[in-house]
Order: sequence, then C-alpha cells, then structure tokens
Amino acid sequence: MSKAAIVGGGVIGGGWAARFLLNGWDVAVFDLDPEAERKISAVLTNARRSLPSLYDRALPPEGRLTFHADLAEAIDGADWVQESVSERLEVKLRVYREISRHAPDLLIGSSTSGFKASELTSEGAKVVVVHPFNPVYLLPLIELSGDPALCARAEILVRSIGMYPLTLRKENDAFIGNRFQEAVWREALWMIRDGYATTAEVDEAIRLGFGLRWGQMGMFETYRIAGGEAGFESYLAQFGPSLSWPWSKLTDVPELDDALVRQITSQSDAQSGMRSIRELEQMRDDNLVGFIRSLRHSGTAAGKVVLDHEAGLPEGGDHLGLPITSSRQVPQTWTDYNGHMNEACYLEAGSWATDGLMRRIGVDAAYISSGYSFFTVDTRLRYLAEVHAGDRLTITTQVLAGEGRKMQLFHRIWRGDGVLSATIETLLLHTDLASRRSCPPMPAVADRLAELHAAHAGMSAEGAGGAVGDRG
Amino acid sequence: MSKAAIVGGGVIGGGWAARFLLNGWDVAVFDLDPEAERKISAVLTNARRSLPSLYDRALPPEGRLTFHADLAEAIDGADWVQESVSERLEVKLRVYREISRHAPDLLIGSSTSGFKASELTSEGAKVVVVHPFNPVYLLPLIELSGDPALCARAEILVRSIGMYPLTLRKENDAFIGNRFQEAVWREALWMIRDGYATTAEVDEAIRLGFGLRWGQMGMFETYRIAGGEAGFESYLAQFGPSLSWPWSKLTDVPELDDALVRQITSQSDAQSGMRSIRELEQMRDDNLVGFIRSLRHSGTAAGKVVLDHEAGLPEGGDHLGLPITSSRQVPQTWTDYNGHMNEACYLEAGSWATDGLMRRIGVDAAYISSGYSFFTVDTRLRYLAEVHAGDRLTITTQVLAGEGRKMQLFHRIWRGDGVLSATIETLLLHTDLASRRSCPPMPAVADRLAELHAAHAGMSAEGAGGAVGDRG
Repeated sequence: MSKAAIVGGGVIGGGWAARFLLNGWDVAVFDLDPEAERKISAVLTNARRSLPSLYDRALPPEGRLTFHADLAEAIDGADWVQESVSERLEVKLRVYREISRHAPDLLIGSSTSGFKASELTSEGAKVVVVHPFNPVYLLPLIELSGDPALCARAEILVRSIGMYPLTLRKENDAFIGNRFQEAVWREALWMIRDGYATTAEVDEAIRLGFGLRWGQMGMFETYRIAGGEAGFESYLAQFGPSLSWPWSKLTDVPELDDALVRQITSQSDAQSGMRSIRELEQMRDDNLVGFIRSLRHSGTAAGKVVLDHEAGLPEGGDHLGLPITSSRQVPQTWTDYNGHMNEACYLEAGSWATDGLMRRIGVDAAYISSGYSFFTVDTRLRYLAEVHAGDRLTITTQVLAGEGRKMQLFHRIWRGDGVLSATIETLLLHTDLASRRSCPPMPAVADRLAELHAAHAGMSAEGAGGAVGDRG
Repeated sequence: MSKAAIVGGGVIGGGWAARFLLNGWDVAVFDLDPEAERKISAVLTNARRSLPSLYDRALPPEGRLTFHADLAEAIDGADWVQESVSERLEVKLRVYREISRHAPDLLIGSSTSGFKASELTSEGAKVVVVHPFNPVYLLPLIELSGDPALCARAEILVRSIGMYPLTLRKENDAFIGNRFQEAVWREALWMIRDGYATTAEVDEAIRLGFGLRWGQMGMFETYRIAGGEAGFESYLAQFGPSLSWPWSKLTDVPELDDALVRQITSQSDAQSGMRSIRELEQMRDDNLVGFIRSLRHSGTAAGKVVLDHEAGLPEGGDHLGLPITSSRQVPQTWTDYNGHMNEACYLEAGSWATDGLMRRIGVDAAYISSGYSFFTVDTRLRYLAEVHAGDRLTITTQVLAGEGRKMQLFHRIWRGDGVLSATIETLLLHTDLASRRSCPPMPAVADRLAELHAAHAGMSAEGAGGAVGDRG
C-alpha cells in the first residue's frame, strides 16, 4: 500500500486526494483550514460517482483517508507529497523547508500553475512541478517540469494513477495549457467589455464549435485535416496571412475594473445561476465521463490514457465457486428516465463478462487477431432487482455448455450489497472471422472451455433454460 | 421539398451540401472546378456515416444532388443560396451581383470567416453571414450576422437542418469562434518556434486538459465552478491579477517564415503522418459523434441541439401490418472488435422500439412524469444476421400480451436490405415510480394496449416463446 501526503486541501488538493484514494493509495491531508475535511469530502463525493465510471473494470479498493494538523505527521511514511497551497512563493518555500527538515529525500510535486521549478527548488528540496487540471480526478493531463531525474520518477507515479505526464522541454511561464486558456480568456474579456457577446454566447461559440474538435484532436491535428491531402504546408499557406490581420485585441489587456466584473458576474448569473455549483460540477463530470468513455471506442486521446491504465488493473477471482468475469462500477451514463440502469446496459455489462470468460479460455486480443471469435446467437436476460448509478457489480459466469462450436454461458450480475440483480443466459458460436461461418475452436481453447464446463456442470443454474415470462 | 444552391464546392461547400441533403433538401452545386464533384462526393461519404449517427430516429430521405456549370441554372427554384467561394471580396461580390440579377429576392448565406455583412451587402444583394465550422455536417455552431430581418429568416433555416444560430450583437472582425482560435494559434506558433513544445505536445496539452472542458461547457461556466459557492466574483478576484503577468507572447506576432513552416510541417508529419487525411477525418467524425451522443444523455450543449432537432423528425408508419416503433441508422460507436454491431446495441435499439410503442399507447414523457412507467423484467434476443455501422434499421413491434400489469412485446429488427437481423421478445410490468411496485396502467393506456393486442393476436410470432438455443 502506498501513501500520498496532500499538503493544502482546496479544490485541487481535494482532487489529488480523490485521485490517489480511488487508485488504492492511503492519503494523509495536511491543511490548517477547519473546513478542509468538509471541502475534501465534497470533492470525494463527486470523484466517487465519476472516476470509476471511466473504467470497465473495478479500481482497487479505496485507500484510507486521514486529516492532520501536523505536517510531520502527515508526511510520515509517505511515498509522495503533493503540494497545492496558495500561489504565494514564500508560503510554498516554507512548506518545502519544513518537509525537507523531516524527510530530505521525499519527492514533492507542486500543483503550481505559475511558478517555475527552478524557483521552487531554491531551498534545495526535491520539488518538481506536477501541474494538474481541474477536476484532477477526471482530467488526465499533468504538466511536469524540473530536474530530469525527478521528473522521470514523477512520470511513473502519475501514470500509475491513470494520468498522462507531459514533461516540458524547458521552463516556461504558465507552462502550456494555461497560456492557451489565458489567451482566450483575455480575448473573451474584451468581447464582453465591448458588448460583442455575453458570457453565455462566448460559451456557446466554444462548446458548439471548435471546443468539440479540441477535446479529441487538439489544434494542429484538426488543422492538418483542413489542409487536406496537400499537407500541412498548404494549410499554413492558406491561413498564415490572416495572422497579421487586426482580428485580435490581444496587443492590449483589458482592465478588470468594477464595471467589467459586474458585467461578467451578472451575465454568468443569468447563464448558469439557476444551477448550484454542485449541480454544475456533476453535470460537468457526467459530460466528461461521457466524452472520455466515447474516446475509449476510438482508443484516442483521453480514451487511450484510460485504456492503458485499465489494462493494468487486476481482474479475475471467484465468487460462490464461479469465476468472476467482470467487476465494475455503474456509470451515470448507463441510467435512463426511470432513474435506474437502462435495460440495454445489463447486456453491456454481460458483454464484458463474456469477454472476461473468453480471455480465461484463451480467446484474447491475439486469438481474435488470428481470425477467430465467438458470435452471440441467442440471449435471455431476467431482470431481478434495480441497479443504480454508482453501484458496484460483480459478474460470475457458469459454463452451461462447451462442446464443438457451441458455448453457452450463464452470467449472474451481483450488486455490491449481495443482491442478485439479473441473470443472462447466452449462447455463442465459435466463428471464422473471414468467412463469418461457425467452426470449432482451436484445441487449447476447446480444452479450457471443456474444463470449465466440467467444473460447473454439477452446479445449480436456477433461472436458466426457460422462456420469457417463465418463473424461477 | 426544399432546394439549396451551393455556390463553391470545397470542403465547406461540400459540408453544407451534405448537411442539406441528409436533411432531405435537394442540392444544386455550382462550381467551375472539374474536381468539385469528386471533392463533394468525398465529404458526402464522411457525412453519411456520421451525421445520421447523432440521432436515434431516422433523418428524412436524402434529397437529390446535382452539379451545374451555370450559376443561373443552379439557383433556379432555390429556397436558399449558400456561398462558400474563396475569401476574396471581389469574387464574392461578383457572385452576389450575378445571383441578384436572376433572383433579386433570393436570400444568400455567406460562409465567410473574414468579411463583415456590411461589406458583403454593398451591392444590394440579400446577403447574411452564415458562418459554419468544419465539419459542417456535424458541428452545430453557426455565427449569423447582418440585417436583422434576414438573420431571423436564416435562424429558422439553420435550425431546420439541426444547427444552432448564434446571432452576433454587432459586427465583429472574425466573429467570435475564430478570434479565440486565432489567439491560441498565435500562442502555439510562438511555442513551436521557441522550442517549448512540439505540435503533438500542444495537441496533448489541449485534448487531455481544458479541451475536454470546453467541448461541453465553454469557458465561463467552467470557471464559474472554479469560483465555488462564493460566486463568479470570487473567481475573478482570485485569478484576475494574473492577467497582467507577462505569460503571453501575444503582444507580438511570430513571422511565419520558411524555417517555422518547415518546423511545424515536419512535427505535424511525425505526429499524424502515419494516418491519411481520410483516416483522420473519420477518426475526428467518430469522436465527434461519440461526444455529441454522450451529450444527449445530459441534454446539454450540442446534445440539446440534436435532441431539439430530433423531436421534430417524423416517426411512425407500418411495415408488414405492424407498427414501426423505431427507425434509425447504426452509429460507428455501436460496433465492436468483431466488426459488427455489438450484441448489447441490439437491445439498445430494441429499447428505442419499446419507447416508441409506449408513446403509441400514451406512455409518453408526460405520463412518466405523472409517476408511472413500464419496467422490463424478462427479455430474449435472437441474433439472426449481422448488422454493420451505417445500416438502416426498421423495428416493428407486435403486442403479444397486454392485460393487467403485463405488456409482452415482440420486436423485429429489419435491416435496410430487408433481412430480419434479430427478434426481441420482452415482458414489461407497469410500475408505480414512487413505490417501485407494479400496478395496472391508467385506463386510456390499458385500452390502447388492448386494442393493439387484439389487432396483433392473429398474426404469427415465429421465434417467440422459446428458451435460449431453441430453433425457429
């Protein structure tokens, strides 16, 4: 079990705490704010309903969360310190001095979005910039900067908790992401101030247009497409000249005076004031989960980060004498207007269990690439108890038949509270992917399937074998 | 049947042609480039596989596409002209003069991203700026600018083809979206030139971080959350000062000289050159479809635009004597590693058909808000033929039972080529959403269900009533 010390328990520190806890780390929080526990608990509530939803496999059991008013106590035995105190250099340096005094070799990541690593290491502490984006528990990007050897250690750490380290080539004010955001922010302030657009209109202009492109490809790959087969050079030739057009206000910075502040806040109230911050957070998180889950399908961008992380998560085990072929948390995106898991998502869960069973008998990605798979031909689902977003599901699989081309499986979907929520009986045929015709599996697969069938043959399969509407 | 004339058949003109065609409009393209037909056909191929995938209801039958070397012929009988010729004012004005000569009252939308409406109307033609974002067939944003009465007509038009008009409050160089993109573009050019990041690193910094936030909430609503319960003012107080920090290079514009062009193109080749433009387009489109489909779940941003549009699409009809309860195209996101529609998506399709049947008997959104719905308790799916991305599905529903609390349905999923690809037999119980217990439906619903049952009772239901593995 690893331990992270979180120094500074605001929204960012809380996001780090959640990211570590949900990846199985123990977390010790140091913050003198009496509200820290309440604030972190609120972040953790959001994280618990969203981060596990990115994955189609269960995350490790949650670590232990403790709060400390003493820094030395918080960092005792820690493998990592993440500092997220306020953006004042003297405060940060004081924290580092104190940490170094107790544990001179402890690696410290700073969440700073403004200070360079060279400024932070002036006291000799082992500090690297480990700059996250809010919500820390969902967004994968980390901007890393500092001593190369320390950065290399930090890279391994952030990958292990499902994040993507982007190590900066050289020190850079505001790193990369915030420089871009800052540029747009200033431009937007001018637009509001000059009455060209309201805050709501600015947001629509972003989220209904280029924002959708940027979330999956960024800017250069998007523009590369615009250049067409002629290559990126043709794009630059076509659009380069507009760089010198006087479109942007950015040669100047608007004064954020009272009038502009009032203008922005009242527009923002009109746009979003009907929803509480908590509601907005949950909407944001549900949408982020939806985006990232959809990127799993193409295996690109944030979807690739999740898939890479998921591949290392443990699977397997047994429950009531049957193999656990899938365990997971139910994403918000699986619920419907009846306030529970949609009927089709039971089958999606079952589909993961079929995949899990297939991997157990050797039908893995390599086997499928070799040209063979199983195709489902007949399936019956019995819905026995409602399932809700956030519920943990454990699916066991009993092999009812496994001879020749046929594989008949019986999945039981167990809710975290031990209630059997559904059974899925499914018949598959081993198939040649080239001819799309059924054929016998390779001998090794047939043997392992037969073994499982023999082991499960004597067990009850109550609820299998009937027609729709049959009891039992 | 409405008709759109597309003047200028490049990537943007092609995107418009596809958007109109797939929404049932006839489209006449005028472009003197002998490659226009090939180029538009390539865009149309991409659009056909992605735009219908945003919807869970079929779009109208595709309109007719014609190509013309004569402008007067192309605009003859048109309800709308969309001009997407090159960004040279004298070329655009010549086109408008020619159109006005033949049809002085015809409304012309210009796809310009640079010229103001006042510049375009200098010849007296009825021109408004109708500025789209690429790919035009997927991204909903339209920036509208010009005479208010003409803009009002244009708003109705773009809504009718599933887009979102953002009408500018006053004329503005580069409108809104491109001003933001331009700001980031310049900042990125500096970063590349100064060696802080490669094009790939810039894209990761965007798509793994704030890009995911912007695609669903934009900037102001995102930052509002960062302000917390204290309101937006507290955010401005906290982050406002950094505006005057020297983070941004934007007080200056980098020269796009040969060295910088070579640097960018070689980095872009290293980042994306292993994929053809066609492959990148399809990846972009699949990801956009995934994003927008995921936003349907929360009903926000681009998801809301699609839902609003979908609500007006026709539904219903009969096929082989049974009601059509759902018709749709199969999204790319519904396919799996076997190269066909995933087993769970058959049930998702069936779930839409159950909803369609429920609406027919009066169990609509209002009925469900009144506290009652149907819950599925038992379902069997027989997989009879493979279904692929882009296939059109028509689902009919036969009522097998409809007395008391029980409703037993038999869905048949017909592929566009007339092949029966699956049957779904499903038993539902009418349920009180407060107590989560079954109860009889309201009399009006019970009557309509009984009528359908009586009408379908004499019909064959081959394939219903069996257990998993039963033939027939």
